Amino acid sequence: MSTDRILARYRIETAHPLEAAAAAMAGEQSSGTFVRVPGETDELRARHAAAVVRITELDTLELPSLPGSHPPPGGGRLRAAEVELSFPRANVGDSLPALFTQVAGNLFELGPFSGLRLLDLEVPEAFAGAQPGPGFGIEGTRRLAGVRDRPLIGTIIKPSVGLTPAATAELVDTLCAADIDFIKDDELIANPPYSPVAERARAVLEVIRRHEDRLGRRVMYACNISDTPEAMRRHHDAVEAAGGTCVMVNLIPVGLSALLDLRSHARLCIHGHRNGWGMFSRCPALGMDYTAFQKFFRMAGADHLHVNGLRSKFCESDASVIASARACQTPIHGRHTVMPVFSAGQSARQAPDTFRALGNTDLLFLAGGGIIGHPDGPAAGVASLREAWEAAVAGEDLETYARGRPALAAALRAFAAP
Amino acid sequence: MSTDRILARYRIETAHPLEAAAAAMAGEQSSGTFVRVPGETDELRARHAAAVVRITELDTLELPSLPGSHPPPGGGRLRAAEVELSFPRANVGDSLPALFTQVAGNLFELGPFSGLRLLDLEVPEAFAGAQPGPGFGIEGTRRLAGVRDRPLIGTIIKPSVGLTPAATAELVDTLCAADIDFIKDDELIANPPYSPVAERARAVLEVIRRHEDRLGRRVMYACNISDTPEAMRRHHDAVEAAGGTCVMVNLIPVGLSALLDLRSHARLCIHGHRNGWGMFSRCPALGMDYTAFQKFFRMAGADHLHVNGLRSKFCESDASVIASARACQTPIHGRHTVMPVFSAGQSARQAPDTFRALGNTDLLFLAGGGIIGHPDGPAAGVASLREAWEAAVAGEDLETYARGRPALAAALRAFAAP
Repeated sequence: MSTDRILARYRIETAHPLEAAAAAMAGEQSSGTFVRVPGETDELRARHAAAVVRITELDTLELPSLPGSHPPPGGGRLRAAEVELSFPRANVGDSLPALFTQVAGNLFELGPFSGLRLLDLEVPEAFAGAQPGPGFGIEGTRRLAGVRDRPLIGTIIKPSVGLTPAATAELVDTLCAADIDFIKDDELIANPPYSPVAERARAVLEVIRRHEDRLGRRVMYACNISDTPEAMRRHHDAVEAAGGTCVMVNLIPVGLSALLDLRSHARLCIHGHRNGWGMFSRCPALGMDYTAFQKFFRMAGADHLHVNGLRSKFCESDASVIASARACQTPIHGRHTVMPVFSAGQSARQAPDTFRALGNTDLLFLAGGGIIGHPDGPAAGVASLREAWEAAVAGEDLETYARGRPALAAALRAFAAP
Repeated sequence: MSTDRILARYRIETAHPLEAAAAAMAGEQSSGTFVRVPGETDELRARHAAAVVRITELDTLELPSLPGSHPPPGGGRLRAAEVELSFPRANVGDSLPALFTQVAGNLFELGPFSGLRLLDLEVPEAFAGAQPGPGFGIEGTRRLAGVRDRPLIGTIIKPSVGLTPAATAELVDTLCAADIDFIKDDELIANPPYSPVAERARAVLEVIRRHEDRLGRRVMYACNISDTPEAMRRHHDAVEAAGGTCVMVNLIPVGLSALLDLRSHARLCIHGHRNGWGMFSRCPALGMDYTAFQKFFRMAGADHLHVNGLRSKFCESDASVIASARACQTPIHGRHTVMPVFSAGQSARQAPDTFRALGNTDLLFLAGGGIIGHPDGPAAGVASLREAWEAAVAGEDLETYARGRPALAAALRAFAAP
């Protein structure tokens, strides 16, 4: 296979012959209409057509996963298969939005399919090299946050909405006093009238700067600047002027193009929040795996990407969470690795399994209730998480490690094993 | 209900008590963590909390639609219900990306649900009034295209990819000679190296201008400018400089924020292509209805929005297509109506039913093969569609109307009733 082709792997469900179904996918995504048209010369096809690389039959199905597919004339056996297609890079140039349309586009609606999911994609080295990618990534985040050899322990400002800049700063003061590494806004607070970004960033960062000497590092605050491109540039500059090191973007509501714009302007770390992701992923027969999705946003410039967490409050399986985190840490042609963000219902309890599954500490570990809701207060909450990670890395049992460590012991009592 | 609240209606599936499940949705989207936190005062809750407006039980289900949901302790009966939530406008300000996170966000992943779909949303009048909305809409599009009292008849450049600017212009010449109203790029061609936007727009519009005097109107060409915000502004200006009246954007790959940026700059009509939409919609238990989705992109400034077509090559039901088209034409507080775009496998055959279901001709009717693949050539293809719509509006039977009208007669022979 030429190195100048984009590869995309799908799981499909169809009652049509697999070869015909795969050819329909390739046709739709490179020349497709229901009548062959005059301009479609052999030379043009050779240069621009998508190709079916491989078809692997998986199993026979009893019922279609999704409604509305068109049965083949005369009927057919409903089967699942994996299909790999290749597309000429020339069709998309260096454009990430064009790549998205190329490998996803109208495919999900095509008549022959009662299921179609993008599992993974591979881009040519030259394509990956032409993307901005994360400006900081794992190493840059560690340097900015002043945290080595362990996960960044962080939390989310709660209540998610309603706090004024002054009230937010007051909570941040408590969290900095608790020796936290990282604080993020909730995805629900962007630039509302009661807490404009510039004012909130100023109030929060004044507090963070005040703790800097004592901590020997500047706590990283991911200020949610999700907005129009122009406003995000303005918000970014306000966060930077206040002394901030990180901004946060709601990737799906804001979109790929606006993230590229921010990245071209940004001098700060970009924390990527994936709210809305459930729509893309929760139906196994539809949408895409995070293995594919996260590549778009890494290449576009996010430095951190959310992956939920083990035994979280969400529906995602632990295996999927770990696969997502590994994907974030796997280079694309030697580039663009980012920090996975473990979040949602996390406490000291999940540290050992997370470390065992991932094999490293290059991650953000966020706990909401696990810190603010710790029975002995936020400082004990942060300490309990750090101790849990020490135990995890040392391969020691949590309960054993908690002896003589009251913060961890209290956390284990308060947050029962889920 | 206060007029300053956002309303969102969902279909949910859960085995938890419905009141508790709905409260979890409201909590997640306004203050949620698994431990009640100190800053969450009663006053803050009163001002910023989401509220459950209404719960309507629908039916009992045997099996969960989606995997991974968390059963209630002790088990429970799996039920579907409609839930309406309200959110204070203050939580999002005037931001469309923030509105998206507010009504969608993490909801799709919440533990109690084996299904969650956003059915519709209503924004306060002041919110709608603060959005740019379509710059041209239905009336503006008709004025620019010089077409009154019938649908704009259009087509898509095929093959989708691979044509040089000169080859594209050659095809456009044929289409203009065929008396077409509207021509769009395929969603797969944006700004590739073999056909840069500026060069393509120049070549195409030179041809269109040459036909202008004879036609008494300038054929509308929707040039696909999907790209980064900065590049889209540049492409827009190139299309405008070449004499174009319309640009096209792939809404999902580009995103809401970049569309807002383009709209703030645009002096041309914006054609919104929804490729990727199948991911949001095809699983009935997940994602969102177009009734909700299209409001975001109308308020952000699209003038045309795709809705598939009756008996199309896609999996969508005809009822859903018509509901989508009606939604596009329904004002949001007296504003923001746009032209629905009927496309995908359309020919003369679908005109009567489309008109009967919609009751007006304020739409774009695009045929690919139905025009270029017409046995007597593209001019006959365009004529056949115009004649089919005359018959539709007159309430006459297609076959009857085709007597003495060879273009329509040939179309009916060539494109068998699907």
